[in-house]
Amino acid sequence: MKYKIPRGTQDILPSESKKWQYIEQKAHDLCRRYNYKEIRTPVFEQTELFARGVGDTTDIVQKEMYTFEDRGGRSLTLRPEGTASTVRAFVENKMHGWADQPVKLYYIGPMFRYERPQSGRMRQFVQLGVEAMGSDDPAVDAEVIGLAMDFYQELGLNNLKLVINSLGDVESRNNHRNALIDHFKPRISEFCGDCQTRLEKNPLRILDCKVDKDHELMKTAPSILDYLNNESKEYFNQVKKYLTDMNIAYEVDSRLVRGLDYYNNTAFEIMIDGEGFGAITTLTGGGRYNGLVEEIGGPATPGIGFALSLERLLMALETQGIELPVDQGLDAYIVTMGEAAKNAAPKLLHQLRKEGLKVDADYMKKKVKGQMKAADRQQADYVLILGEDELAESSVMMKTMKTGEQELVPLNEIKDKIFIAD
Amino acid sequence: MKYKIPRGTQDILPSESKKWQYIEQKAHDLCRRYNYKEIRTPVFEQTELFARGVGDTTDIVQKEMYTFEDRGGRSLTLRPEGTASTVRAFVENKMHGWADQPVKLYYIGPMFRYERPQSGRMRQFVQLGVEAMGSDDPAVDAEVIGLAMDFYQELGLNNLKLVINSLGDVESRNNHRNALIDHFKPRISEFCGDCQTRLEKNPLRILDCKVDKDHELMKTAPSILDYLNNESKEYFNQVKKYLTDMNIAYEVDSRLVRGLDYYNNTAFEIMIDGEGFGAITTLTGGGRYNGLVEEIGGPATPGIGFALSLERLLMALETQGIELPVDQGLDAYIVTMGEAAKNAAPKLLHQLRKEGLKVDADYMKKKVKGQMKAADRQQADYVLILGEDELAESSVMMKTMKTGEQELVPLNEIKDKIFIAD
Repeated sequence: MKYKIPRGTQDILPSESKKWQYIEQKAHDLCRRYNYKEIRTPVFEQTELFARGVGDTTDIVQKEMYTFEDRGGRSLTLRPEGTASTVRAFVENKMHGWADQPVKLYYIGPMFRYERPQSGRMRQFVQLGVEAMGSDDPAVDAEVIGLAMDFYQELGLNNLKLVINSLGDVESRNNHRNALIDHFKPRISEFCGDCQTRLEKNPLRILDCKVDKDHELMKTAPSILDYLNNESKEYFNQVKKYLTDMNIAYEVDSRLVRGLDYYNNTAFEIMIDGEGFGAITTLTGGGRYNGLVEEIGGPATPGIGFALSLERLLMALETQGIELPVDQGLDAYIVTMGEAAKNAAPKLLHQLRKEGLKVDADYMKKKVKGQMKAADRQQADYVLILGEDELAESSVMMKTMKTGEQELVPLNEIKDKIFIAD
Repeated sequence: MKYKIPRGTQDILPSESKKWQYIEQKAHDLCRRYNYKEIRTPVFEQTELFARGVGDTTDIVQKEMYTFEDRGGRSLTLRPEGTASTVRAFVENKMHGWADQPVKLYYIGPMFRYERPQSGRMRQFVQLGVEAMGSDDPAVDAEVIGLAMDFYQELGLNNLKLVINSLGDVESRNNHRNALIDHFKPRISEFCGDCQTRLEKNPLRILDCKVDKDHELMKTAPSILDYLNNESKEYFNQVKKYLTDMNIAYEVDSRLVRGLDYYNNTAFEIMIDGEGFGAITTLTGGGRYNGLVEEIGGPATPGIGFALSLERLLMALETQGIELPVDQGLDAYIVTMGEAAKNAAPKLLHQLRKEGLKVDADYMKKKVKGQMKAADRQQADYVLILGEDELAESSVMMKTMKTGEQELVPLNEIKDKIFIAD
């Protein structure tokens, strides 16, 4: 092979691209109904936008970034995720001043992380993300969660599990943080080095540690839910009430946390429960980030969003044996007999395509038998046979593939025949 | 501004993204009718794939490439165009062995060139490209040209001009090349340095020179059309016949040339003729490249394709004052009166969205008047007023915005009322 595709990336070939189109169309349609509007930001941004964080989650992202200098010496980075770009665009385009608040946006596009490629994890992958900025109404939290759930459900996924939690507001988080420090500090030497660093920096992340997950202090660690102040408690209750109203089942899991400082109140994940899916069980995660717009240079603005990987979604659909209703077949295939008919085919093809039909013909000088086989392989509903006799009558012999019936049809009536039969 | 968008790139905001969706949907639909199937290749490739050329066209591309090393030390390049990637995927996936030939593919996606940004020329831009590989039937040339013309016409563009030419086969090109050398050589010292280099390397490109375009030898230069051998002449005649059959007007311009060696036979451009479009007049260009698949490491395979910029298309639409039929408005907006109604809104919203309606409500604690204004601003066809009385009756007061009529409608009949009225 002279040239190879870069490691960790994939070509999406026609048999798969149909599914991608279907899923993306579903996303566009669903977001439209929820009144979220598409935003498209560049594939790369100034590196500082992604490198601004200090939490260790962000450190990981930075180690995986595709960062390079352009010919003008600016450091650019292929976006590892979509939220920072969307918020940058919100700030730069002064969307906080738009008449309609909250500003409800979504994006679909490629993201890039230099990771070790493995099943369901590519270096270029596609995310659908949704961000609502400008309102701290708990109904928005329920709306965003509802949109994510509807997306999976309308595609036919089963065994979905929604897990929610509240991280509380700044006051609640600080109280919980202090309780965590008090809880772990006396025995922190029994924990791994990372956890020892996390103790003062971000004790919440100790709860996520894979090394120390079985330490006895883990089970008895103070739960954020016991540290929510009244306002945060009321907020969380409203979100839960709305979900119940919307008929969306959920579980509360107080261990569902987000390490970064700008997160607060609602956090959620949608998991898939089922055999054969291997290690991958979380389909999407999201939450409130009332501090993020300010961090990126805008006015204090509440926000909430989620992002999900379309590759992972496709894996989930495949695991559950769900066939998307994509149509690969032709409406009609033109079979020509003889030179004159072959010469007349492009005109007829063009006419039928202009009329809205999906039609094709042979370009490989195949004999009639070979053309019939191609029509079959391409799942044509009809074969339009064009020979000298038909040409003379400005007609085709139209064969219905399902029944084998044949009838002579004038060229200008083909479209109607096919559309009516549909 | 703390973070800025990279120079030469743009955010596509909701008012514009609707147009992009419409145009892309048109492209998907048209390609579907023509039986071209989508391929998606990665945003970056190994640099060698794009750096393989020797002609001076390719030199220009190389100077404009975004090239960088990944963390594994591999040189990668953001794709400057889509054909090389598509052909690489054709070869790597052994598509020449697929049962259905030619393999008819299209792509829509971002491309990257580090150029001085100017109107209609961005560093990240989106191309739609079409490639048919595996057939040397002139009917395919006509089909590809027809697809491009239909795309522009179905979007409503006027004053389109199709220009075609034949570069002939290898023999014809060589004869023409020798004639060009004979023509320019005696007086080559009167030409610019670039042209002097081109004389032996690629004399065809002298005809494109902007410096020497008024030199008297330019007008009298031998035309490729006088050097076509019989086979090439016959091929070109067939393409022209099919275009005429398809009712597609064209002009032949023997000065329409392509510098690279792998091009042959058909070349075409679609221009737009019209005031106010400034310097940009060519919307798309394409042609046959029977040598390209082999150059990229595959078996000798004929091919033809074109690529067009969606940014430039949008500019053309704007210049001609063409409004795309994009719908920005809501089906309905829920206006709530009082706390209980506000609390009930998320459930109703979710129900209506699941039923297929595009609905929204207030998340900013607006008073009734403010909610009505929002409904108006968002072009809602209906306002669904929900107060204590309506709640008690499981109904809404439904106001038709166009007429001002109001009527009480049970919650489970809203959808039908709205769909029937449509």
